[in-house]
Amino acid sequence: MSKKLWGGRFGKKTDPLVEEFTKSVHFDKRLAAYDVVGSMAHVKILKKSGYLKTVEASRLLKALASVQKSVAKGVFKPGAADEDIHTAIQNTLQKKVGDLALKLHTARSRNDQVAVATKLYCKVSLLKAEVAISGLIDALAASADKNKRIIMPGFTHLQHAQPVYLKDHLGAYIEMLKRDIGRLQRISAFIKVTMGSGALAGTPINAASYFVKGREIGGFGEAFDISAAVNALDAVSDRDFVIEILSALAITGVHLSRFSEDLVIWSTKEFGFVDIDDAFCTGSSLMPQKRNPDVLELARGYAGRLCGNLVSVLTTMKGLPLTYNRDMQLDKEPLFDSFRIVLSEAKVLTGLVKTLKFNAGKIGKQLEDESLYATDLVYYLVKKGIAFKNAHTIVGKLVKYSADKGVEIKHMAQADLGKFSDKLVKREIVKLFDPKVSVESKRSIKR
Amino acid sequence: MSKKLWGGRFGKKTDPLVEEFTKSVHFDKRLAAYDVVGSMAHVKILKKSGYLKTVEASRLLKALASVQKSVAKGVFKPGAADEDIHTAIQNTLQKKVGDLALKLHTARSRNDQVAVATKLYCKVSLLKAEVAISGLIDALAASADKNKRIIMPGFTHLQHAQPVYLKDHLGAYIEMLKRDIGRLQRISAFIKVTMGSGALAGTPINAASYFVKGREIGGFGEAFDISAAVNALDAVSDRDFVIEILSALAITGVHLSRFSEDLVIWSTKEFGFVDIDDAFCTGSSLMPQKRNPDVLELARGYAGRLCGNLVSVLTTMKGLPLTYNRDMQLDKEPLFDSFRIVLSEAKVLTGLVKTLKFNAGKIGKQLEDESLYATDLVYYLVKKGIAFKNAHTIVGKLVKYSADKGVEIKHMAQADLGKFSDKLVKREIVKLFDPKVSVESKRSIKR
Amino acid sequence: MSKKLWGGRFGKKTDPLVEEFTKSVHFDKRLAAYDVVGSMAHVKILKKSGYLKTVEASRLLKALASVQKSVAKGVFKPGAADEDIHTAIQNTLQKKVGDLALKLHTARSRNDQVAVATKLYCKVSLLKAEVAISGLIDALAASADKNKRIIMPGFTHLQHAQPVYLKDHLGAYIEMLKRDIGRLQRISAFIKVTMGSGALAGTPINAASYFVKGREIGGFGEAFDISAAVNALDAVSDRDFVIEILSALAITGVHLSRFSEDLVIWSTKEFGFVDIDDAFCTGSSLMPQKRNPDVLELARGYAGRLCGNLVSVLTTMKGLPLTYNRDMQLDKEPLFDSFRIVLSEAKVLTGLVKTLKFNAGKIGKQLEDESLYATDLVYYLVKKGIAFKNAHTIVGKLVKYSADKGVEIKHMAQADLGKFSDKLVKREIVKLFDPKVSVESKRSIKR
Amino acid sequence: MSKKLWGGRFGKKTDPLVEEFTKSVHFDKRLAAYDVVGSMAHVKILKKSGYLKTVEASRLLKALASVQKSVAKGVFKPGAADEDIHTAIQNTLQKKVGDLALKLHTARSRNDQVAVATKLYCKVSLLKAEVAISGLIDALAASADKNKRIIMPGFTHLQHAQPVYLKDHLGAYIEMLKRDIGRLQRISAFIKVTMGSGALAGTPINAASYFVKGREIGGFGEAFDISAAVNALDAVSDRDFVIEILSALAITGVHLSRFSEDLVIWSTKEFGFVDIDDAFCTGSSLMPQKRNPDVLELARGYAGRLCGNLVSVLTTMKGLPLTYNRDMQLDKEPLFDSFRIVLSEAKVLTGLVKTLKFNAGKIGKQLEDESLYATDLVYYLVKKGIAFKNAHTIVGKLVKYSADKGVEIKHMAQADLGKFSDKLVKREIVKLFDPKVSVESKRSIKR
Repeated sequence: MSKKLWGGRFGKKTDPLVEEFTKSVHFDKRLAAYDVVGSMAHVKILKKSGYLKTVEASRLLKALASVQKSVAKGVFKPGAADEDIHTAIQNTLQKKVGDLALKLHTARSRNDQVAVATKLYCKVSLLKAEVAISGLIDALAASADKNKRIIMPGFTHLQHAQPVYLKDHLGAYIEMLKRDIGRLQRISAFIKVTMGSGALAGTPINAASYFVKGREIGGFGEAFDISAAVNALDAVSDRDFVIEILSALAITGVHLSRFSEDLVIWSTKEFGFVDIDDAFCTGSSLMPQKRNPDVLELARGYAGRLCGNLVSVLTTMKGLPLTYNRDMQLDKEPLFDSFRIVLSEAKVLTGLVKTLKFNAGKIGKQLEDESLYATDLVYYLVKKGIAFKNAHTIVGKLVKYSADKGVEIKHMAQADLGKFSDKLVKREIVKLFDPKVSVESKRSIKR
Repeated sequence: MSKKLWGGRFGKKTDPLVEEFTKSVHFDKRLAAYDVVGSMAHVKILKKSGYLKTVEASRLLKALASVQKSVAKGVFKPGAADEDIHTAIQNTLQKKVGDLALKLHTARSRNDQVAVATKLYCKVSLLKAEVAISGLIDALAASADKNKRIIMPGFTHLQHAQPVYLKDHLGAYIEMLKRDIGRLQRISAFIKVTMGSGALAGTPINAASYFVKGREIGGFGEAFDISAAVNALDAVSDRDFVIEILSALAITGVHLSRFSEDLVIWSTKEFGFVDIDDAFCTGSSLMPQKRNPDVLELARGYAGRLCGNLVSVLTTMKGLPLTYNRDMQLDKEPLFDSFRIVLSEAKVLTGLVKTLKFNAGKIGKQLEDESLYATDLVYYLVKKGIAFKNAHTIVGKLVKYSADKGVEIKHMAQADLGKFSDKLVKREIVKLFDPKVSVESKRSIKR
Repeated sequence: MSKKLWGGRFGKKTDPLVEEFTKSVHFDKRLAAYDVVGSMAHVKILKKSGYLKTVEASRLLKALASVQKSVAKGVFKPGAADEDIHTAIQNTLQKKVGDLALKLHTARSRNDQVAVATKLYCKVSLLKAEVAISGLIDALAASADKNKRIIMPGFTHLQHAQPVYLKDHLGAYIEMLKRDIGRLQRISAFIKVTMGSGALAGTPINAASYFVKGREIGGFGEAFDISAAVNALDAVSDRDFVIEILSALAITGVHLSRFSEDLVIWSTKEFGFVDIDDAFCTGSSLMPQKRNPDVLELARGYAGRLCGNLVSVLTTMKGLPLTYNRDMQLDKEPLFDSFRIVLSEAKVLTGLVKTLKFNAGKIGKQLEDESLYATDLVYYLVKKGIAFKNAHTIVGKLVKYSADKGVEIKHMAQADLGKFSDKLVKREIVKLFDPKVSVESKRSIKR
Repeated sequence: MSKKLWGGRFGKKTDPLVEEFTKSVHFDKRLAAYDVVGSMAHVKILKKSGYLKTVEASRLLKALASVQKSVAKGVFKPGAADEDIHTAIQNTLQKKVGDLALKLHTARSRNDQVAVATKLYCKVSLLKAEVAISGLIDALAASADKNKRIIMPGFTHLQHAQPVYLKDHLGAYIEMLKRDIGRLQRISAFIKVTMGSGALAGTPINAASYFVKGREIGGFGEAFDISAAVNALDAVSDRDFVIEILSALAITGVHLSRFSEDLVIWSTKEFGFVDIDDAFCTGSSLMPQKRNPDVLELARGYAGRLCGNLVSVLTTMKGLPLTYNRDMQLDKEPLFDSFRIVLSEAKVLTGLVKTLKFNAGKIGKQLEDESLYATDLVYYLVKKGIAFKNAHTIVGKLVKYSADKGVEIKHMAQADLGKFSDKLVKREIVKLFDPKVSVESKRSIKR
């Protein structure tokens, strides 16, 4: 007997190259748990609509529960000849309950089945990603708090700009990651799990029968409630949710790449702002002294992969006619890969952040750079009645003079200062070259 | 006097190649209206916080209102030497109110200014996109309604699958576009317009002063309310909203590419399902008979551009250290381009859809293909107690036999039918080869 | 003893999450054969330069040959703790020859080692891809030849344009694939396999010692000759060859997606131009009649993945400082994946093309469409002295009249024809509506 | 009279939205010069093949030469109603020579015309890009030579690795850019300019008539020779050359992004390795002290745009059936944009490199870091007979000890050194901590 879910109409065996080229079980096996849940819902629907007797439904549910257990234990193995996970589970059921399994496919299409399983997978994986990102936020918040007194040179264009609190620099990443979690939650909220689309045209089963509570199929919450699709053709053709997720994960990836870049730069010999713990560094096979921030580099580089995964599915979906086309099977590997990446990045960076040691001495040394206080000098002049842009020009010239002459502003004589503006009073301005004074003078940020 | 917003610290003139390479006014002039609104808000904030006297604020607001008018009329022209739109507006103000304009830059940075203007631009453009997409939904709904009796062969893999209503095929696109609108609305709702970040470190102005109601700055609604940023470093470094929008517009672009592909195929000589109106076709300079669906092809092709624009900004943002870096200026052209594309696509497709003529005759001809009813035959057997998968195999063999022998199933003798299954009763099954019967037997879809 | 190639400088164990996150052996094991070859070359170099005695070199080469065999047999298994394939092979050698293996790492860095192995892998894989694409070209050429008499409607914008030979339509794909092979060959020719870069700074071994003939290391040809890098910093930082290959494979993928699209459309019920063999179709679990061209759809869809893989590496490489950074490790999975895809596509499509059956009847039916000959009518008028553009307008009007009235041009009376131009002579023009006459009148193409 | 190159067959005017949506003249006007050259060639071909009399050909060539002049002067302006540049030139010719212009369209299609003009544009633009990149190579080579004595810490993972010559670090970029030029040259060499494809089916003109020497059409060299296409369907469908160019330009963009990143980091206050000249920096509107490397940041960021442009065209071409489809018009804006970006980047960076000032003092300070010489210590031990990996471990422990105790290796007592290995002789190893000794000991690089 053929192991495929189709075949009667065919006069020839499938070419082995085709079997190899089209099979998906080696990656969609990750959907096993979700396909089982979808099948459980389908059994309930078939029972409600009279296609299965109570006793048949019970036998099938029991068999499915047994598959569920073996999936959970990691011992479920698809057969070598199964073309996809749906076929694998179907064939396993047949071994367990015999021909009764053949009824399970009533009013059901893999087009619909794969959409259900993928959506359930996404909902669960989105939750996992949220938890992992939350963990990283917590680590960042703890580090920000531990180092809350450290003031550092703030950067724009990687040049010294103005003093800022290290906790605010770390806090910027917390804001990004919070937005990321919100984005993932909203995506999940708008994924509707539907059934009853058949291959594209709907099924003979009444729409009402398709209402299945998430908790009826094994403890999933309300977000997992199932209902009939509003439009069956759309339901089997839709991969919006995959693209939305890939896009959101790419954004998170970009955030983590920026964080990694900051730390890579800060942990150079030249900056020396931070030490990455030995447990989070790797070495070189040639150069014995090396302690390289490989974790950060991979986290930076993975932004490229996440972007590529997004492009992969967007490009694949371009220009596909309705409804289901096999091209759509290619959404899964990029989806699985992007989830894997973001989850592992969030986890490993959480550990790395927990062990970061900021070097207050080296950071503080950089705060001696007078140019960091130039804007404070401008505000000082503005308070004395000079228009902002004029004050900006005065201080610009002063900074240039200081650099050209190699004299610090705070060491310049009152007479020299006076050449730039008669409002510049030496004993007043020397107080401005103080990081604490500078950061505390900024009132626009709620602390 | 230098026309730039900086310069005092510099000992040399900017190289002309650098001016050419870094200037953005030729594209960011599109932000003019929004920069003016942002400047109006800033005037109010400076007044509240004592940096501007009431009379100064009034003069500046009046001058800004005058710029606003010239922008609205399309007569505002940045000077040739202005490096960006913010400088252009600043310089124009200086011509109008003299040195008072120099105070406008108090406690303000272009890093912050550009974020505000871009966010306001996005909010307005998102609304426009929603309206344009709504227009297309209306056109599709009207066409679906007008042709509500037409049944067509539904396709999976572009092969005949089962009969479906044309209105449901069009309805699938309505569902997609509705999701698109929801997505754009949610993005807009989560874009927070903030001020007071300065270059990165905040400003000496109290956070409370930054609350400005949208309506205070010219009729914008609540969505345009301004407040101080929670984290200034994040506020000037953030381009998440740009990427989210580019991603959402790319998804819409993919939807429109699929719709276009369907119509391109349906309007071939071979399908003949639909006629594109002459007003929406173009011709060939060589072949006089040609009526080409160029609009649809461009709509299909633009999905590529929309995807490219998304990649452009994602890749540019990868690995940027905090906070603002000039790379981020490169977000604007892709953003403007993607909005332009989706708006123009939605509008031109609305016109095209309104004039579509479906060819019921040609469509109906295809419904004679018996294979479209094979699934109904399976359901028929299932109702007679055959397990679904067995019924599937029986009908598969029947279809193959019919194709091999060149005999239609409905013309096969009862005896022949009986060879496949004794449940096949000729007088019953002949009724199944009816598109209306087939589509109406699907109960899973709410109509 | 630590199984890593580094560690002395470290005070702590690597965090398990880091080991998991940074390890690459699960994918770079594909480089095993090439790393062994590179190691053999390195042994020869160490011997030439006096770092290894003859007997030591012999023992190491023998051990490497034994690893080579087990790799070739598919029985080589990296240890669970090996972080990459280079470490795995090193550790295996140590088991075989003891501490002598520790000398193999003299003057060698994984930065260099991975570049060598990847380049050798690429050269071999490029050859395989060329062979596979050649196979597809042969299948296309055979099909073109078998069907050389079939004339079909040529398409622009998927609308009937002018008659063309089917062999020329297939020939267009042959041209594309020939360009693809040329592109791959040129890429391979310009990949220089170099050694001696160390981690980035070169090694104490003289440049001349790095000349190793391809045939010295196991039968590889001249293309595999090794020499010292011109610039060591570039050699360990360069991934141009990976991006070039990914780009070339993406172009091939686009070609195959276009070919697949043509066949998907041609094998619809409505076109019916071609039959895909049962052995290259798959079915539906719901609809028993389905014979779906899944192979073609996947080949079409994979263009997206190939494009995504290219973006992945391009984006990852963006903005990396010199020299080697760990981000660069992320080039491998996309590279392996793209090669796998193109190879499998070329092979499965070769089989599919060999079994294609063109339906001369259905194709011929479409040639009755008079509009296909409109351009020939224009040339006819031009020969009679009418300027091309005027002739184009005349025929355009004639075609419109014919369509509006529902009368074929060849059935129009001479009097009616005369209304459009007195040069239109019925008995002459009726001969033009002949596909053979039309295609043979085109002299610009060498046949 | 209609200004379009088609129209006779149409019963309605084109919808204004369609004209707006489909027109390309606002960007393809950049092809004007190349379309004129293509038209000149076409006149010669029409004359050779008898479609134009000598006197007609002369008049047309004269008119074309006049258009050519106005294009060269920058005064050629397409009419507002011209849909594309080809139509604009055709209409201009008609004004100049009346109805004779109508003959120019004989045996010609815009599908072919646009391919010819784009290919000529590409060949010329590729040359320009090569020249611009050569200029940058020269600037780098001059800077390398001027600073040839500077030794710097070489980086891997942005961590101190081993000393290298600055000239070699700059030399790595020279290697990359040389590869880039070679790549562009090879692409150009393989672009074949062909004519005679008509819309897709060829023309009645003999293939031999299509041979036109590049110099016959205005001074272009051999690379611009024209001949008949081998396969007309391919010739009008092919955009490989566009994608190849976009890919090559993206690779160059990645190289320039890496160079920019290096300089951005080196010009930080913390590194201080290099000063960017005032003429190549820009300032801040808020912070008067700022001298920002905006040029470098834009060059880094543009790698994203170049990648996006590549994706744009790749995705657009995916899945297009043969032959020409209007989607293909969307290749031009990305192509023009990518050429513009790389040309301007190469030029502005040339200026920037010429004015770079390396800070030998600050760089030299970093060479005091002993860890840079750890690998030299390993080689020292290897020469004394210790296996490389053991030597690596010994030195790793020594470096760790030195860091933990805060004692430099060169200041450690012989007794302490002896604890790590009895081969470590203090008076020998102190000589190793010398950058010059270190770099000169590397013999694998040809200098």
